[in-house]
Amino acid sequence: MYELVIKKGRVINSDAAFTADVAVEDGKIAAVGAELAGRREIQAAGKLVIPGGVDTHLHFTLDLGGGLVSTDDFFTGSRAAALGGTTTVVPFIHPEEGESAAEAFNRRQREAVGQSVVDYGWHMNIGPEAFRRSGGVRSFVEETAALGISTYKLYMAYGYRLNDAQLLQAMEAIAGVGGLPVVHAENWELLSHLVQRAVDAGHRHPRWHEKTRPAEFEAEAAARVIAIARWVGLPVEIFHVGTREVVAQIRRARREGAAVYGETCPQYLFLNNGAFEREGIEAAYAVCAPPLRSEEDRRGMWQALAEDDLQIVSTDHCPFTKEQKRAGLQAGFHKIPGGVPSLEMRMAALYSEGVAKGRFSENRWVELCSTFPARLHGFAQKGVIAPGYDADLVVFDPAARRTITAEGLHEACGWTPYEGLELTGAVESTIVRGTPVVEQGRFTGERGIGGYRSRSGAL
Amino acid sequence: MYELVIKKGRVINSDAAFTADVAVEDGKIAAVGAELAGRREIQAAGKLVIPGGVDTHLHFTLDLGGGLVSTDDFFTGSRAAALGGTTTVVPFIHPEEGESAAEAFNRRQREAVGQSVVDYGWHMNIGPEAFRRSGGVRSFVEETAALGISTYKLYMAYGYRLNDAQLLQAMEAIAGVGGLPVVHAENWELLSHLVQRAVDAGHRHPRWHEKTRPAEFEAEAAARVIAIARWVGLPVEIFHVGTREVVAQIRRARREGAAVYGETCPQYLFLNNGAFEREGIEAAYAVCAPPLRSEEDRRGMWQALAEDDLQIVSTDHCPFTKEQKRAGLQAGFHKIPGGVPSLEMRMAALYSEGVAKGRFSENRWVELCSTFPARLHGFAQKGVIAPGYDADLVVFDPAARRTITAEGLHEACGWTPYEGLELTGAVESTIVRGTPVVEQGRFTGERGIGGYRSRSGAL
Amino acid sequence: MYELVIKKGRVINSDAAFTADVAVEDGKIAAVGAELAGRREIQAAGKLVIPGGVDTHLHFTLDLGGGLVSTDDFFTGSRAAALGGTTTVVPFIHPEEGESAAEAFNRRQREAVGQSVVDYGWHMNIGPEAFRRSGGVRSFVEETAALGISTYKLYMAYGYRLNDAQLLQAMEAIAGVGGLPVVHAENWELLSHLVQRAVDAGHRHPRWHEKTRPAEFEAEAAARVIAIARWVGLPVEIFHVGTREVVAQIRRARREGAAVYGETCPQYLFLNNGAFEREGIEAAYAVCAPPLRSEEDRRGMWQALAEDDLQIVSTDHCPFTKEQKRAGLQAGFHKIPGGVPSLEMRMAALYSEGVAKGRFSENRWVELCSTFPARLHGFAQKGVIAPGYDADLVVFDPAARRTITAEGLHEACGWTPYEGLELTGAVESTIVRGTPVVEQGRFTGERGIGGYRSRSGAL
Amino acid sequence: MYELVIKKGRVINSDAAFTADVAVEDGKIAAVGAELAGRREIQAAGKLVIPGGVDTHLHFTLDLGGGLVSTDDFFTGSRAAALGGTTTVVPFIHPEEGESAAEAFNRRQREAVGQSVVDYGWHMNIGPEAFRRSGGVRSFVEETAALGISTYKLYMAYGYRLNDAQLLQAMEAIAGVGGLPVVHAENWELLSHLVQRAVDAGHRHPRWHEKTRPAEFEAEAAARVIAIARWVGLPVEIFHVGTREVVAQIRRARREGAAVYGETCPQYLFLNNGAFEREGIEAAYAVCAPPLRSEEDRRGMWQALAEDDLQIVSTDHCPFTKEQKRAGLQAGFHKIPGGVPSLEMRMAALYSEGVAKGRFSENRWVELCSTFPARLHGFAQKGVIAPGYDADLVVFDPAARRTITAEGLHEACGWTPYEGLELTGAVESTIVRGTPVVEQGRFTGERGIGGYRSRSGAL
Repeated sequence: MYELVIKKGRVINSDAAFTADVAVEDGKIAAVGAELAGRREIQAAGKLVIPGGVDTHLHFTLDLGGGLVSTDDFFTGSRAAALGGTTTVVPFIHPEEGESAAEAFNRRQREAVGQSVVDYGWHMNIGPEAFRRSGGVRSFVEETAALGISTYKLYMAYGYRLNDAQLLQAMEAIAGVGGLPVVHAENWELLSHLVQRAVDAGHRHPRWHEKTRPAEFEAEAAARVIAIARWVGLPVEIFHVGTREVVAQIRRARREGAAVYGETCPQYLFLNNGAFEREGIEAAYAVCAPPLRSEEDRRGMWQALAEDDLQIVSTDHCPFTKEQKRAGLQAGFHKIPGGVPSLEMRMAALYSEGVAKGRFSENRWVELCSTFPARLHGFAQKGVIAPGYDADLVVFDPAARRTITAEGLHEACGWTPYEGLELTGAVESTIVRGTPVVEQGRFTGERGIGGYRSRSGAL
Repeated sequence: MYELVIKKGRVINSDAAFTADVAVEDGKIAAVGAELAGRREIQAAGKLVIPGGVDTHLHFTLDLGGGLVSTDDFFTGSRAAALGGTTTVVPFIHPEEGESAAEAFNRRQREAVGQSVVDYGWHMNIGPEAFRRSGGVRSFVEETAALGISTYKLYMAYGYRLNDAQLLQAMEAIAGVGGLPVVHAENWELLSHLVQRAVDAGHRHPRWHEKTRPAEFEAEAAARVIAIARWVGLPVEIFHVGTREVVAQIRRARREGAAVYGETCPQYLFLNNGAFEREGIEAAYAVCAPPLRSEEDRRGMWQALAEDDLQIVSTDHCPFTKEQKRAGLQAGFHKIPGGVPSLEMRMAALYSEGVAKGRFSENRWVELCSTFPARLHGFAQKGVIAPGYDADLVVFDPAARRTITAEGLHEACGWTPYEGLELTGAVESTIVRGTPVVEQGRFTGERGIGGYRSRSGAL
Repeated sequence: MYELVIKKGRVINSDAAFTADVAVEDGKIAAVGAELAGRREIQAAGKLVIPGGVDTHLHFTLDLGGGLVSTDDFFTGSRAAALGGTTTVVPFIHPEEGESAAEAFNRRQREAVGQSVVDYGWHMNIGPEAFRRSGGVRSFVEETAALGISTYKLYMAYGYRLNDAQLLQAMEAIAGVGGLPVVHAENWELLSHLVQRAVDAGHRHPRWHEKTRPAEFEAEAAARVIAIARWVGLPVEIFHVGTREVVAQIRRARREGAAVYGETCPQYLFLNNGAFEREGIEAAYAVCAPPLRSEEDRRGMWQALAEDDLQIVSTDHCPFTKEQKRAGLQAGFHKIPGGVPSLEMRMAALYSEGVAKGRFSENRWVELCSTFPARLHGFAQKGVIAPGYDADLVVFDPAARRTITAEGLHEACGWTPYEGLELTGAVESTIVRGTPVVEQGRFTGERGIGGYRSRSGAL
Repeated sequence: MYELVIKKGRVINSDAAFTADVAVEDGKIAAVGAELAGRREIQAAGKLVIPGGVDTHLHFTLDLGGGLVSTDDFFTGSRAAALGGTTTVVPFIHPEEGESAAEAFNRRQREAVGQSVVDYGWHMNIGPEAFRRSGGVRSFVEETAALGISTYKLYMAYGYRLNDAQLLQAMEAIAGVGGLPVVHAENWELLSHLVQRAVDAGHRHPRWHEKTRPAEFEAEAAARVIAIARWVGLPVEIFHVGTREVVAQIRRARREGAAVYGETCPQYLFLNNGAFEREGIEAAYAVCAPPLRSEEDRRGMWQALAEDDLQIVSTDHCPFTKEQKRAGLQAGFHKIPGGVPSLEMRMAALYSEGVAKGRFSENRWVELCSTFPARLHGFAQKGVIAPGYDADLVVFDPAARRTITAEGLHEACGWTPYEGLELTGAVESTIVRGTPVVEQGRFTGERGIGGYRSRSGAL
């Protein structure tokens, strides 16, 4: 008699699909099999039972300075995640000047502990300030690794960007602890020049957000950081790929045997640069960086997922309020805070467009959204339904039909660029390490049920 | 209380690895979990528990005519398979002129039923005679599919070869039943010309076996049949790939999005054309078609497995007796019956050179030798350890060390080209649909325990 | 005081362009320079002076049997060539069973001598009958080489096709004499099967001509013959390329360092498969083999010329009469005699669409239509305006505008698929080894002024 | 009766080879033909007559500051060029802060006028200071173009380097005048970091010069600048390519249709990184940037020339004195003034290893060393032997055999890294715009006979 058993669902792993009961004990999957009995049972006949989604790229209360803080905090964000079938999230720690790795970690932990309803890890940002610390970047990375963090965010854009020599040194430090760098790859020198030029010429419309960030230069940056990672001998993941030019660089490197990985996000799979032509504030909603690209690029991302040229779908969830978007729109495309809410819709959206429309299999869906992000990012106990793995489970109804609306979502920002999108398939129940937090599609969990998951390395 | 439980082994699937008990009931896996109790238990702590190997390419009593029959029959062959950790095999049905698909099936079944100690399916050969039947190839394929056979062997070599128009029609017929063609790809016109020329020039040495079958022309044949399959819109598997030229054709097609798959075999992974320079009869032992290639090619096959340019390791097990090899050697390279025994050593050999030497992961090992061959060939219930799948299980000791010798093997031919090869890892127990047939490395099974597995389609 | 001087034209070679006088003496270019005086002078100020066109693929009185003989004989054909700015042509010798190379050569020479108004060489066809001769194909090729013929046509289609082993042997023989094989590459087995199937299904419309010859299979044949040529170590030219699939095979081989060349023709540059949808007999006019392809393919051929993936533009000129086309149309697409008249329009058409529209330079135009075909096919004295080269010269008016009409052309067939095509640039004068045969756009030559040009090898 | 006639040589153009007299009048080629008579005649029977070499990359009196000035001045340098068969050179103008384009031009002209024995153009360097000028880089480029300069050097290394945004703006300015950027492509941030690290670790040996400049990062820089040029829509030439990694980037871009060109130099064709292991000062002699690479790279450069992946062979001639090299050697690899003398040996060396050893044809030799550099760099009157072109002519004895020694050369530095290299073929006479300056292999010219050649654009 197990603590909890999910009965008779069709279990989907990345390499198998079978009908079985899934038994949970002490937060772990205890058994997978026929005729398992539980003190509590969830009926799942006709439903899919999948390992909970793993979203390895999102922002909770991202502080851009000047009062610009992204909308979801750990509670509202993790609740939206759980409602969307995601049971593990990985936001970022942005250390302040002079703050130790441990201090920054503790600061952020205070925002999460007691709040999060899903498990979480942290990416550590490495910025130029890490090089000014005593002990330098190497010591900073070692301190970070000691905190159970194995993934490091490197920016090639914004004030926080590293130059090439810093990228190389950061990667050497990461290699020293067996970690993984995840990279925002853009050519900042070129795009900031083009932005300034457009601004000087009087352009303000959001469409200039894309025009001033040519795909060729995004691909240049990706190729550059891949070259550095290959020289160091380190795997590398390129974040938020939205253009076929970057896919080509990743594919080329992979085909030469390099451990290079690419992530895309719902915004690059469901939206194109036509969104910049929407009326009023909606054009501002669509602003994120790198920008949305052409319809051919959008379709190319789906193809890249099917052909394993991209390996992960995360969200880069980072919405700002309507007011913040509106203020940016008035000030000009370069002042619009970038970010789109995709956290809650990810799993169902990928099922609907990916599986239900025949672009890839149920197994691939699970692999893209759960198994592989867990593996690459070092969550050894997540992403698979098998004994001993964390009992992060989602019961998914493949036949349900939903329409996305801002009201229907639980993200804090109150708007969505996907308004009206019709989806096949919906999350019915979500279980975080053995505890149901979503039942019948409604949030029934408690704050703080999710916990920090320490990692000792990456793939 | 289950019928049988394998206790505390490290379970390896293609996408996961975890420690668990595996419970068996009625020939199926009933549960995978902690603390499962069985009326019978096999202790596996410290051992790997893997889905039984699936060998989708081998010959039992292959009759070449003129009294040349390959050595292993269904009993000795399946026993060797079981001892080597393989629980499913797929030999061939070669229909005779005028014999219906069902008659040919029944004739072969009589050799297998009551003899086989592992499960089996059949490939159906499609030769020119299929086109002379009433109803033609389409009707022949439909009859075959009705027998639960979903894979079809097409030869581009030997008297049994099809011409290009026949290949196309055979593929259309196979597409009609959702089957998979598996192909022996060589350019018969070219190689038979080069063989004749070499024979006319007085060459007899086995090294001429390779010299008269240039890799470029093997690749030409592969490219040709791939082109035909792509036009028809059918997946295709190229059998026994041993040269990088063929790998390049497969890779190219796959990268263009085509459903093309490649298999290699232990002989191409452990031997090179240096074997043709061995003393006396040993040079004849090494003869198989396509031939062994250069050391660079041999290493290239390992790389192709690691990088997913090849997807399956089967054996093409087809040994003839020493006497038959010797007679061939005296008559000349073109008269040596081709075939090498690799059936019993496959799983351990791949573990030893692949996993223990760090070429790929345990998961990939299972995927290459069990999960993917099962999936591609339509064995929906095999290749994964999960509830509901067939309880085909192998307990593998990763620390054991063995040296291959002809005496130590249980194949009927009495010789091996791998004499003296040292391996890390060995099969300890093999369970076929719930029944142990190998225990402590010794055969303890009974004839006939294995059964025919009907299939309704391929990947 | 030279025999003849062309005054003050802009001389275009493949690597240079300059204004100079071109002096002729004894059929050769005697000098190129300023202030050269001639007993006769042609004024060319404002005009281009180019080396005469070299058309290395065309048919005069091609006899398909059953009374089907292509329309232009040596006089009408060579006159059309001259009017179009072509001063060297290379038709084919088709040896009959039992006829020696010399006999076949003499038979064809009788049709040409005293008739041709331009110079000519011959391609020798090598068919299956060459293998039945005493001495075999090697002896046949040696006899042919002794006649000053260095290029050999190999068919992979029609009754005259060679199988792969014959292709290999023919190429070995050609390699022995330093010759060049030129190949009609199609997969006859596949296309004849598809044709038969279409005919059996009742299809008769010319559009089925293309549908039954898939580009993938044309590319397969090209890849196959390229593989054989590379194995033999021989250059090879693929004739009449009209699809990007074949271009891809040529490009791939070239980029691997192989001496592989590709030719396209005006029909693949100016027409697409939309021509099969024209009304009535015009649909039949467009039938040639390989067939016209898509608009994307058509544009792809221009790109391939610009990027040197294709190296030659010849014509495969082979028109049949309206009556013959009409009879074929009634009998069905497979009975329409294939062939399009492109001989007279080639040079101007390539100038108009290629140079005037900015696709490539004047130099590339000359290279594609004259310099490189001359070089590859062994016409060491042709294709360049420099002292010692044959005085084959064309004065071309780059500003003239012409509209193609059947009446305006001088080809014998009386129809053209290019009716109404407007061209920029026109041939004004043509000089064959020092003798003007076209002046002010009108034919002023005499029968028989052209001569046979013996060659001792190919590039 | 012409002023000068070169009699009966074998004239080699990039697209033709023929025996003819070449007549000169007023510094131009007046005629090419048979039986031309001159007031002066040079007998060339049995010799090759080629267009004079064009060396589009070399340094005369390059001032690195601190008294480090490269050795050859305009007289000794141009004399060495002439003795080596080069009749046009293109050194650099390095404008000083505050100096106008015209002032810088005039300053450099004063060093050349009355000194040079061959014709010359100038590259204009564009450094960061160009962006500080009033009118900015656009105005600076326009002033430069007005001086007849059409090629612009952009550095991605050294203090003079441009950042990416400056590269983009410089290219836009160059595009505005139809010019060509030529680029020193290295990733300065990365290499200067690696150099500093090596120096800090105590490394001083010249072999560290290569170790600190990984080929992958040289390729990164090339890819980056190519991306920028493609975005601007401008052709670009990558200077001094010595590694296959850079060749791969150039090839890739060219195959995508981009106007990208690559140059290599004798040092990358005749030396490899083994030179850094030579005894004593000889290890310092080999230092140049980018560094010499592996033997596989060296051979790769020859292959790239043959296959048109590289298009130009220039020299980057920039030798310093033995004393300067020695002082650098003592101070450490990073202090050795980089530069190798290759000016005088280029034409013969390329003939010997390229043509005489069968790597490419005589025509390709002329194309690489004269025709194409002239064309790409806008010397419309050079690089071809045809009427109206400048009478820059070289009589080359293909049968002569020479051994390179420092004493035998006429470069000012007094040493050569090619000591002892045996060459087939030697320059016999060199004629600069009609005036012989080298006769029978000896310098017979006068200072100042060469002149500045204004250009109005590039290819």
